[in-house]
Amino acid sequence: MNTFGRIFRLTSFGESHGKGIGGIIDGCPAGLEIDPGFIQNELNRRKPGQSKITTQRMEPDSVEFLSGIFEGKTQGTPIAFIIWNKDQESKDYDELKNIFRPSHADYTYTQKYGTRDHRGGGRSSARETIARVVAGSIAKLFLKQSGIEINAYVSQVGEIKLSKLNQDLNFSKTEESIVRCPDVETAKKMIARIEEAGRNHDTVGGIISCIAKRIPVGLGEPVFGKLHADLGSAMLGINAVKGFEYGSGFEGTKLSGSQHNDIFIKTEKGVQTKTNNSGGIQGGISNGEDIYFNVAFKPIATLLKEQQTINKDNEEVVINPKGRHDPCVLPRAVPIVEAMAALVLVDHILLSKINRL
Amino acid sequence: MNTFGRIFRLTSFGESHGKGIGGIIDGCPAGLEIDPGFIQNELNRRKPGQSKITTQRMEPDSVEFLSGIFEGKTQGTPIAFIIWNKDQESKDYDELKNIFRPSHADYTYTQKYGTRDHRGGGRSSARETIARVVAGSIAKLFLKQSGIEINAYVSQVGEIKLSKLNQDLNFSKTEESIVRCPDVETAKKMIARIEEAGRNHDTVGGIISCIAKRIPVGLGEPVFGKLHADLGSAMLGINAVKGFEYGSGFEGTKLSGSQHNDIFIKTEKGVQTKTNNSGGIQGGISNGEDIYFNVAFKPIATLLKEQQTINKDNEEVVINPKGRHDPCVLPRAVPIVEAMAALVLVDHILLSKINRL
Amino acid sequence: MNTFGRIFRLTSFGESHGKGIGGIIDGCPAGLEIDPGFIQNELNRRKPGQSKITTQRMEPDSVEFLSGIFEGKTQGTPIAFIIWNKDQESKDYDELKNIFRPSHADYTYTQKYGTRDHRGGGRSSARETIARVVAGSIAKLFLKQSGIEINAYVSQVGEIKLSKLNQDLNFSKTEESIVRCPDVETAKKMIARIEEAGRNHDTVGGIISCIAKRIPVGLGEPVFGKLHADLGSAMLGINAVKGFEYGSGFEGTKLSGSQHNDIFIKTEKGVQTKTNNSGGIQGGISNGEDIYFNVAFKPIATLLKEQQTINKDNEEVVINPKGRHDPCVLPRAVPIVEAMAALVLVDHILLSKINRL
Amino acid sequence: MNTFGRIFRLTSFGESHGKGIGGIIDGCPAGLEIDPGFIQNELNRRKPGQSKITTQRMEPDSVEFLSGIFEGKTQGTPIAFIIWNKDQESKDYDELKNIFRPSHADYTYTQKYGTRDHRGGGRSSARETIARVVAGSIAKLFLKQSGIEINAYVSQVGEIKLSKLNQDLNFSKTEESIVRCPDVETAKKMIARIEEAGRNHDTVGGIISCIAKRIPVGLGEPVFGKLHADLGSAMLGINAVKGFEYGSGFEGTKLSGSQHNDIFIKTEKGVQTKTNNSGGIQGGISNGEDIYFNVAFKPIATLLKEQQTINKDNEEVVINPKGRHDPCVLPRAVPIVEAMAALVLVDHILLSKINRL
Repeated sequence: MNTFGRIFRLTSFGESHGKGIGGIIDGCPAGLEIDPGFIQNELNRRKPGQSKITTQRMEPDSVEFLSGIFEGKTQGTPIAFIIWNKDQESKDYDELKNIFRPSHADYTYTQKYGTRDHRGGGRSSARETIARVVAGSIAKLFLKQSGIEINAYVSQVGEIKLSKLNQDLNFSKTEESIVRCPDVETAKKMIARIEEAGRNHDTVGGIISCIAKRIPVGLGEPVFGKLHADLGSAMLGINAVKGFEYGSGFEGTKLSGSQHNDIFIKTEKGVQTKTNNSGGIQGGISNGEDIYFNVAFKPIATLLKEQQTINKDNEEVVINPKGRHDPCVLPRAVPIVEAMAALVLVDHILLSKINRL
Repeated sequence: MNTFGRIFRLTSFGESHGKGIGGIIDGCPAGLEIDPGFIQNELNRRKPGQSKITTQRMEPDSVEFLSGIFEGKTQGTPIAFIIWNKDQESKDYDELKNIFRPSHADYTYTQKYGTRDHRGGGRSSARETIARVVAGSIAKLFLKQSGIEINAYVSQVGEIKLSKLNQDLNFSKTEESIVRCPDVETAKKMIARIEEAGRNHDTVGGIISCIAKRIPVGLGEPVFGKLHADLGSAMLGINAVKGFEYGSGFEGTKLSGSQHNDIFIKTEKGVQTKTNNSGGIQGGISNGEDIYFNVAFKPIATLLKEQQTINKDNEEVVINPKGRHDPCVLPRAVPIVEAMAALVLVDHILLSKINRL
Repeated sequence: MNTFGRIFRLTSFGESHGKGIGGIIDGCPAGLEIDPGFIQNELNRRKPGQSKITTQRMEPDSVEFLSGIFEGKTQGTPIAFIIWNKDQESKDYDELKNIFRPSHADYTYTQKYGTRDHRGGGRSSARETIARVVAGSIAKLFLKQSGIEINAYVSQVGEIKLSKLNQDLNFSKTEESIVRCPDVETAKKMIARIEEAGRNHDTVGGIISCIAKRIPVGLGEPVFGKLHADLGSAMLGINAVKGFEYGSGFEGTKLSGSQHNDIFIKTEKGVQTKTNNSGGIQGGISNGEDIYFNVAFKPIATLLKEQQTINKDNEEVVINPKGRHDPCVLPRAVPIVEAMAALVLVDHILLSKINRL
Repeated sequence: MNTFGRIFRLTSFGESHGKGIGGIIDGCPAGLEIDPGFIQNELNRRKPGQSKITTQRMEPDSVEFLSGIFEGKTQGTPIAFIIWNKDQESKDYDELKNIFRPSHADYTYTQKYGTRDHRGGGRSSARETIARVVAGSIAKLFLKQSGIEINAYVSQVGEIKLSKLNQDLNFSKTEESIVRCPDVETAKKMIARIEEAGRNHDTVGGIISCIAKRIPVGLGEPVFGKLHADLGSAMLGINAVKGFEYGSGFEGTKLSGSQHNDIFIKTEKGVQTKTNNSGGIQGGISNGEDIYFNVAFKPIATLLKEQQTINKDNEEVVINPKGRHDPCVLPRAVPIVEAMAALVLVDHILLSKINRL
């Protein structure tokens, strides 16, 4: 089950230390102009080694398209692509071949499949998300035509929480910050928190928030393909994600209905709502207001310090992993969240073409 | 898109004030014994009028199977069923025909489809979930054979939060409580809170927690069909749900990796983990520990008091709905959460039959 | 796997002697006007007892819609329906409970599922096709809007073959003939051949031809969803079908390329082809010419005379079935062929909405 | 729609003159040993330049696996692969850029997508089938474990028809013949017929027959996924195919039921049938007898001689294509037919694991 989407579908492949990571995008309409610079920029936002607070592995992470694009445009045919693996140091993983690292997928993969490519986590590595960023960047090019804009940003690192609301943030500042938090003061604290984790050979989790603007009314299938359910499924499919909420989310459960309801009003633009606790989605269908949601990331499991665990022979052992790892996955996960959101939105825009006669 | 699942698939149909609500279950293996009493009991747990804190509408909600069962057993053929609508008072909705109720799906349906069955919310009514309870109860019969058990319960109503952990709860107490909270003291406060909301013609939200025990290792497709992503999608597909988290969830984002990692240990049962921040799922695949998660429900939108809104002609109007409604959806949503969890688990158990040669 | 189609999807249910046969149509756009008279007429064309050359079982076969239609129009929501079983005489089948009839599905169902509803063939009965006629008649209503017309007819019964070509036939004559062959002389011979089979307590096979006119250019997915592959799959899914060919078909294999190629020419209408060996489909995509194809039906397996076979205990036995059966399935299969063709065409019309930006 | 299969799924990509042709196989169980020599041999059976009666283009056609295989075995993860294009002479196609060749997909692609990669037919080229041969060869490795064997062969070229039946053929002779007909005398005539077509700068069609032995009982989904419907859809998806029949096929329509029915008998092996007009499939489900079917191929459309046609500006023009082409596609299509059959059988073997509890 390596395919995501109903109409605009990404099928992903590849392992961390195999030949490369790639995918096939099927169902992309013909005639979309492909901007390679834009796609590379999205990959750069995700790639390791981009700042002092990410892993220092250097991977060029440039994409090679294998099919589906002719004279700069999509052809309606499948778009295959690969990002060749380069800087893999598989030896770093030799000692982990027979060991199940705590809170990794080593144990579950082995139990499920009876086998496992142990090098760099194999298929379970977050390096797989590179395929999603490529597909997501093509989805973003599609969305750009309709003026839809998606902005994700880091809103919490450990206990440090951004207190400003969406409407008070200037998203053009997100990329200026290595932690991808648009608020300068909070960003500083977050960076310090990540550096502290790095010094301790430890890791730290957090929250990425995302907002999508200028969404057409009517996206979402009202029962089992609710727009927020598809967004949730997309986000929960990202490595290390433990939770998803949209609109008023978990906090909203404490409100009474009269506080929570979004009153419809008549404006110059047509119909709008006074408040937006619905997060732009009512009954699973977009209502034209901003869609916003939060994604919870656990602290990643790879620690560069001693931990007890067991091996294949069910013996207790102590591991002390080498390798180059991120103390915090969040800054690099921002483009991944945006990419998955873009895939869901394009899929629903295409689906919505058959709503009515 | 009214189909849920990959192998064990429910396709649901029906509107609140149409002839009935039903569905087709396709992909159920042959030979499963159907216990009608068990299924009816699940329906009774969901049905309106069951206690003083639910809507006083009386609906018998008994299921009629139309196909797929012969001599008490499933045949491997599609299982169709219907719950005939009985106590519908469509006239209550006449005045709402041209009005978009705040935070309902009236507006988005109309915009999407250009038409809408306004009676009782039509297809967007939570009455649709009755089909899920029927399918889920068959899934539960399947799971029972493997000893898998799913327990959901209300863990929060408004600000009132159950402080006990899963392991300190006695789930046999859940059904003794009309609010479906297994802790007697907390249940009392929750009931009072719901009664207060009812008196105010207002509504209140909350959280349902769920735990599944004795899960086999190896369920879940590691990239786009992660077990928790499918659970999340299932829960977010339930009416009024705004968030999903599993294992350590949103709170876990504040921990460091060394606090969060679940250390593998050797026990009599084989491999286990010391802690269970992973919520029984690592890398998207079950690891044999308990699966647990939380589901956030907003306060439902139907208030029995005056609210401002707009109508189809984009005029501002004031509504004051009649009808019989729940002040709090949570007690009746407990079997729905369990049903959707059961559907996901059965689907993954069937999928896991092809993991290996 | 009881679902047909990608966007416009029919999920069918029911057994021959269960409560009824029905289905759910999902993915039908909102706003389609439903004409119950038209649907009933399609059912009447399929129903038993309609003439002296069909089975004399009398089944009213009227459809009850359960959802998805409001004020006479589709709502974009799932359209569920059922045809209640009425004239079933299950006792006729008692003696067949433990017997595997030759060339029926009794043996294979039992081996596959370990169980079987033996009454009237259960799920394997051609009565299931009634669900397809209902869904197909809604698809036809959709196609009518675009002026697309589908005409199937019986072109061969046993050795008796209609020698005229499509262009020489007057399809308005098809329904005037109880064998549904538009050529009066050939029809007479076919009827005599069927009556002969009936007198012999035997059965006879044949061919149904079908032609679809005014097809838009561009339907069909060029690799795995070729328009003719989907038509073929649809036809081969009808009970008793043994072959499918389109355009020049099996005979065309004997031609050389220079004879077979369809030369493009410029006409008033735009681009057309001089000949139409392609059957209106090139590279899997419709080219605007008429689509035509043949469907081979075997003589049905139920004979009202003695045959040797085996039973569940692997003992050789002799059967002599009772019941009321068709000596030839073809006249009643004409609306089924049309229905399946309509389902494929609507599905591809909806799919084609996302070909291009 | 570039994905084939339900569980064992091939998603194909690539154009004739792009970087390469490839695909992703998803849903292959873990633990299957991959024999690269076997796969290359299958590719060699399909590749151009293999004999005097095929095109003289020389393409190494060796596959590069990109993922999913570790230490020689499948991992349960997606298996991506590519065959890099090498001997493409795109200039041969320059003059065809704006021309619609008769009975090719040039016109329909352009109308559907508004664009087209004209070089060598782009995505519509039969070179795409190379991806199917790779996937099919992995499916064959899977089938080999269960002893299932698939033999396809050329049974007709133009008017020249092999008169022997399956049981009288020695399939070990097929590969000894460059036309892949196991009967030496008929093969000679077929070769002469193809050479004649080549001399005339013309092409010739024909039929490929296929037989699969040692099929387990119980494969096939009885309503919309009938085993023969899936085989038919697979075959009709191969370039140039115009028809499919299995078992008694079109000829069987002339028989009476008492001639056609396959009588069950008790043998040492258990249950068998005296005759096999059913082609090993009853009610859409395999019955353990040999599965056999015929596939009709039209004469391919590319002629190396003058033909009239039209161009993009709707002007009549004369073309006289260069390039190196097959006068008859059949010898090279034999491994493609086997590959597609293997994909269908593996898919149904995996699906059948969930038939019963």
